[in-house]
Amino acid sequence: MSSEFGKLLKVSVFGQSHGRAIGVNMDGLPAGEAIDLDALQAFMDRRKPGQNRLSTARKEADRPIFLSGLENGVTCGFPLCAIIENSDQHSSDYSELADKPRPAHADYTAHVKWGGHADMRGGGHFSGRLTAPLCIAGGIAKQILARRGIFVGAHLSAVAGIPDASFPLHPTAELFDAVAAKAFPVLNDEAGEAMQSAILSARESGDSVGGVIECAVIGLPAGLGDPMFEGVENRLAAALFGIPAVKGVEFGAGFGACSLRGSENNDPFAVENGKIVTTRNNAGGILGGITTGMPVTLRVGIKPTPSIAGAQQTVSLSAGENAELSIRGRHDPCIAHRAVPVVEAVTAAVILDLLLEGNHGTF
Amino acid sequence: MSSEFGKLLKVSVFGQSHGRAIGVNMDGLPAGEAIDLDALQAFMDRRKPGQNRLSTARKEADRPIFLSGLENGVTCGFPLCAIIENSDQHSSDYSELADKPRPAHADYTAHVKWGGHADMRGGGHFSGRLTAPLCIAGGIAKQILARRGIFVGAHLSAVAGIPDASFPLHPTAELFDAVAAKAFPVLNDEAGEAMQSAILSARESGDSVGGVIECAVIGLPAGLGDPMFEGVENRLAAALFGIPAVKGVEFGAGFGACSLRGSENNDPFAVENGKIVTTRNNAGGILGGITTGMPVTLRVGIKPTPSIAGAQQTVSLSAGENAELSIRGRHDPCIAHRAVPVVEAVTAAVILDLLLEGNHGTF
Amino acid sequence: MSSEFGKLLKVSVFGQSHGRAIGVNMDGLPAGEAIDLDALQAFMDRRKPGQNRLSTARKEADRPIFLSGLENGVTCGFPLCAIIENSDQHSSDYSELADKPRPAHADYTAHVKWGGHADMRGGGHFSGRLTAPLCIAGGIAKQILARRGIFVGAHLSAVAGIPDASFPLHPTAELFDAVAAKAFPVLNDEAGEAMQSAILSARESGDSVGGVIECAVIGLPAGLGDPMFEGVENRLAAALFGIPAVKGVEFGAGFGACSLRGSENNDPFAVENGKIVTTRNNAGGILGGITTGMPVTLRVGIKPTPSIAGAQQTVSLSAGENAELSIRGRHDPCIAHRAVPVVEAVTAAVILDLLLEGNHGTF
Amino acid sequence: MSSEFGKLLKVSVFGQSHGRAIGVNMDGLPAGEAIDLDALQAFMDRRKPGQNRLSTARKEADRPIFLSGLENGVTCGFPLCAIIENSDQHSSDYSELADKPRPAHADYTAHVKWGGHADMRGGGHFSGRLTAPLCIAGGIAKQILARRGIFVGAHLSAVAGIPDASFPLHPTAELFDAVAAKAFPVLNDEAGEAMQSAILSARESGDSVGGVIECAVIGLPAGLGDPMFEGVENRLAAALFGIPAVKGVEFGAGFGACSLRGSENNDPFAVENGKIVTTRNNAGGILGGITTGMPVTLRVGIKPTPSIAGAQQTVSLSAGENAELSIRGRHDPCIAHRAVPVVEAVTAAVILDLLLEGNHGTF
Repeated sequence: MSSEFGKLLKVSVFGQSHGRAIGVNMDGLPAGEAIDLDALQAFMDRRKPGQNRLSTARKEADRPIFLSGLENGVTCGFPLCAIIENSDQHSSDYSELADKPRPAHADYTAHVKWGGHADMRGGGHFSGRLTAPLCIAGGIAKQILARRGIFVGAHLSAVAGIPDASFPLHPTAELFDAVAAKAFPVLNDEAGEAMQSAILSARESGDSVGGVIECAVIGLPAGLGDPMFEGVENRLAAALFGIPAVKGVEFGAGFGACSLRGSENNDPFAVENGKIVTTRNNAGGILGGITTGMPVTLRVGIKPTPSIAGAQQTVSLSAGENAELSIRGRHDPCIAHRAVPVVEAVTAAVILDLLLEGNHGTF
Repeated sequence: MSSEFGKLLKVSVFGQSHGRAIGVNMDGLPAGEAIDLDALQAFMDRRKPGQNRLSTARKEADRPIFLSGLENGVTCGFPLCAIIENSDQHSSDYSELADKPRPAHADYTAHVKWGGHADMRGGGHFSGRLTAPLCIAGGIAKQILARRGIFVGAHLSAVAGIPDASFPLHPTAELFDAVAAKAFPVLNDEAGEAMQSAILSARESGDSVGGVIECAVIGLPAGLGDPMFEGVENRLAAALFGIPAVKGVEFGAGFGACSLRGSENNDPFAVENGKIVTTRNNAGGILGGITTGMPVTLRVGIKPTPSIAGAQQTVSLSAGENAELSIRGRHDPCIAHRAVPVVEAVTAAVILDLLLEGNHGTF
Repeated sequence: MSSEFGKLLKVSVFGQSHGRAIGVNMDGLPAGEAIDLDALQAFMDRRKPGQNRLSTARKEADRPIFLSGLENGVTCGFPLCAIIENSDQHSSDYSELADKPRPAHADYTAHVKWGGHADMRGGGHFSGRLTAPLCIAGGIAKQILARRGIFVGAHLSAVAGIPDASFPLHPTAELFDAVAAKAFPVLNDEAGEAMQSAILSARESGDSVGGVIECAVIGLPAGLGDPMFEGVENRLAAALFGIPAVKGVEFGAGFGACSLRGSENNDPFAVENGKIVTTRNNAGGILGGITTGMPVTLRVGIKPTPSIAGAQQTVSLSAGENAELSIRGRHDPCIAHRAVPVVEAVTAAVILDLLLEGNHGTF
Repeated sequence: MSSEFGKLLKVSVFGQSHGRAIGVNMDGLPAGEAIDLDALQAFMDRRKPGQNRLSTARKEADRPIFLSGLENGVTCGFPLCAIIENSDQHSSDYSELADKPRPAHADYTAHVKWGGHADMRGGGHFSGRLTAPLCIAGGIAKQILARRGIFVGAHLSAVAGIPDASFPLHPTAELFDAVAAKAFPVLNDEAGEAMQSAILSARESGDSVGGVIECAVIGLPAGLGDPMFEGVENRLAAALFGIPAVKGVEFGAGFGACSLRGSENNDPFAVENGKIVTTRNNAGGILGGITTGMPVTLRVGIKPTPSIAGAQQTVSLSAGENAELSIRGRHDPCIAHRAVPVVEAVTAAVILDLLLEGNHGTF
């Protein structure tokens, strides 16, 4: 195990979907940072289910209770632990699953690893529920970054193969806010409509769809990150793959760059307003693992929700033979739109960690 | 900085392209492992340049000298340090670059981070040369894994947008060997011919192309890896992004899964020959960060070689104004095919680390 | 910051003395371990204050609430988070201290590090209160170890310079239990009486005394730990210095060995009952950082309680001049006896971590 | 294994006593630091054996060869790897030892851990030889620190129970230099004479003695280090126990504080020349794991050299029975005086790491 990431700022997540509480511990937060709890709640509400037909009908209050590290709304330098008490659970829905692992879930691997001991009710520690504490951590990180002119934003880059527009070369905090304020976080609302239709269509078929999230960080200084294995890409990827259902991470032009020629992919440098920039950003703001000062851009691929209504082929662990499974309960036909703030959250926490470390290339 | 990855097996890389030597230190290797040095050399030769018109004419001997950790060809349990002495360098080719950062290289970010102090001759520590010590580490890891029935293989999945076939659901060690024996490591040689034409065409235009590498690991037990941030994906991605020019990493169906429906993407479980398997492998052998026992599969996107012959727009750091740059010297029109063994190497080292840690889900 | 230790088993502590709750997160616990909560409470009660005149009159319930990781009293493989809610606080007692740092406390260094932001009421995150969550973690670790025949015990080796007897060459679990059952944890009760007199005498003078704790671990296999910087000594010392007031750590004969000759200090090997042992144990069961299979023995030096009743010289941070300070409130004239279970707890958690890692010298 | 310490500055040591080379890799050094190689050699010569009758007659050149990270005598920001080639080895002296583990050496634990595979000639990776690369790292760190007004010095605090004087409350760089320039590094030369007599006497008896080293760091800012498990004490202790033969580490008054009353041990604060200081330094410059700005002081206990001339009781691993062993070859009757620069080296490397991390209590 390690449900933790970070170097100078460590973010640890704990809890099971149907346990007493889920939570997060942030060790290494700077002191003296005022946290706007209403803004934090608004950020968390962006991942909340049950808001429309696109998501499950479960109602999650997701109100963080701060046990430590935050006094009178200001960080005090000590580990910040916040929890969310669980409620509204229907554990009985999951009784069959102990024997019949759900395809594309972690039921089988949990069975192999922990025998029958893992508390896999509701997906246990693998549940999407655990992204709520990630949003507490990331929401706090976002506020600390914003105070220094660094902003993190994201949108649904694609759902079910339907593409949204891409962020412009220089996205702005206002653009991030505008997308975040939308019920469905896309740049191009027509594309968003088509995506929502695809989600509802999947829902009607008892099926699900996946999506891609594009995330950008603006306002970063050049020089953050280290070469080889502690570069910005390494650290972001290592954390982003911790979000449930993520199966791919790419930076800048990403896999698309592999089909370009060097003359097309190389970002020319130029001096603009006395500052060195690149005139395009296929590098995603990162060269040699180190920030260039251009926006850091990345895309994260979210697989279709594994829980679907139709019958699926699986095995009976007790009988050691093939079996059929129909998953009951309430499930999201798509989780990609709810994962948008989660990608922002994890990205913000990693970026804050990098920023705390600073650019100590010279002393 | 940290040019190191791994938890129980730490792999540290050091050296600059035109420095005295490059090398690797492996801390945590098990003792008593006989290393076939001829096989290791053969593995390293797969990334060697100068073998045909597809690569630079530089000749690199790349013969590792073992300073510690290997006695009479057997690991002795202590840190294994191996170096490769540098030679055949033309540092004068790089004199102009100190002032004019090459697009898509780390010259500019190195300048920001270390001022004029970084030894960037030949790309310094960012050079593709540094993948030679990675291959020493990975070649050793591959031999240790193979002894336990675990095999790592890779091929060029695409070059310049031209796709190779994919690995079958259950690739074999023989298939890995067959691909590795080819001068151009593809499954489908016709696709390989087309790729090579594209590389030569780019070369003739003074340009370059990128590619995608597919890698698979077979023979793994189920239950390796941990949920959330120390899963198999997190650890592999964190290390793979350390290979120069990697801009994307995906597992199983990867970004492709995002366009599938859940019913298409979920891998059904089945009992085959008394063993639990999945009948497809969109998960890439990993669910919840933990191995399923199916092949671990991943794809790595390699951007086009940044060094191209044509004139490029950049800036003069001293003058603070726009400038033009033409890179002289010998360069690979494509590095993706040479990166195939490097991806195997890094993957093997991470997998060995995971295997040393074992499945300690229960005690 | 990092209020965390451990490699495969990470133990993170959070909370401030007068905050809402203190707690611990254990990431990496094996699944399927039944925890006897009554026994855990009994272990925690050993550090509880307010039991007699030797300690402060504060009453701390110290009842852990398990938020995650423990279901029906059995570990489930996921991070185990347990908290203790705070109560019975008299924060007003500490109001003067924000300006006048208490000698030998962390008030001044906290002021330098976090400005006025640190929540130092009651000592904040530096308080001895934080050893309660350490005892939750260590008490759990002790139970898991005991199930495998590994026992951790400790006693007061000295108070105010008055020595207790030492553990015999081969202490037993019964001996550990017998000491743990005593109100004052010494081997030699006469020495214990003298120590208690010294504590009461210090109390009457408004002063305090320190002590030394000897801890031993029996039942360990040989071969745990790694050479140089991840040896058993390195790991134990790194964690033990995290206990408030610890100023020294030594293993086996420790500093005493420095006055011995080699012929006196070297532990002869011998075969006893078919097993290789040493006939004395100046090495404290550790050679080259690796366990010999003999008891691991260590001593930890605890400074006198910094809070004393008399007037002390300090400074006024606001005035920037010398000042006098008299600390009000209830304080322990000695904390060494209450620290005995804490030393056991930290030792047990480190040993369990080492045991989970196992001896992977060969594969 | 992990023959590595450090967080932002990682120091990795490799090599066996009788292997091809020993060396060190420093990952995270700031760029642009000029290293005076003559001064570095002079520092390394302080640990060199064969200088007088107090040490073994072996001659070790110990000239570092820099493979990377240092160009024209200036750090370039990339990992600095330096090696020392081995020579003058008499491996035949050690042939008997493979079967009969030497008391107080790591022979037995190495046997348990790595079977017969460990290369234990000359002590292998456990040899005092490995402190030479530590001195390369520490000598470089000392130069970088000195440029910023931070100085590390040490002296023999005791040998064979014979005490030297202690450092004054405020030791100076000049005092450190004066001690370092002595053939026998003590403050009080009369005590030094007595210590040398004790060493020679032990040598004549075919025996050995141990000692204690006091080390101090001056010029540090207040506010370095973190509470609980990443405090200055935790990090220094974790690294210092990596020096062969160290069995105890204490800070400030250390174990001596345990016999003091609080009123004696607490260091009063005072304003002197506008700066907050303590008027004594029982805390060793560290409160709550964080530097106070006073000198950091520590003592390290070095056990008597395990290799002694007389017959010792051991076992035959092959026969599984008791056996007698007489160690041939050249050995130091005391290693404590040679360990003085090693303690400085490790301390300096840890302090530099802390300094690179800085005081990020607030942002």
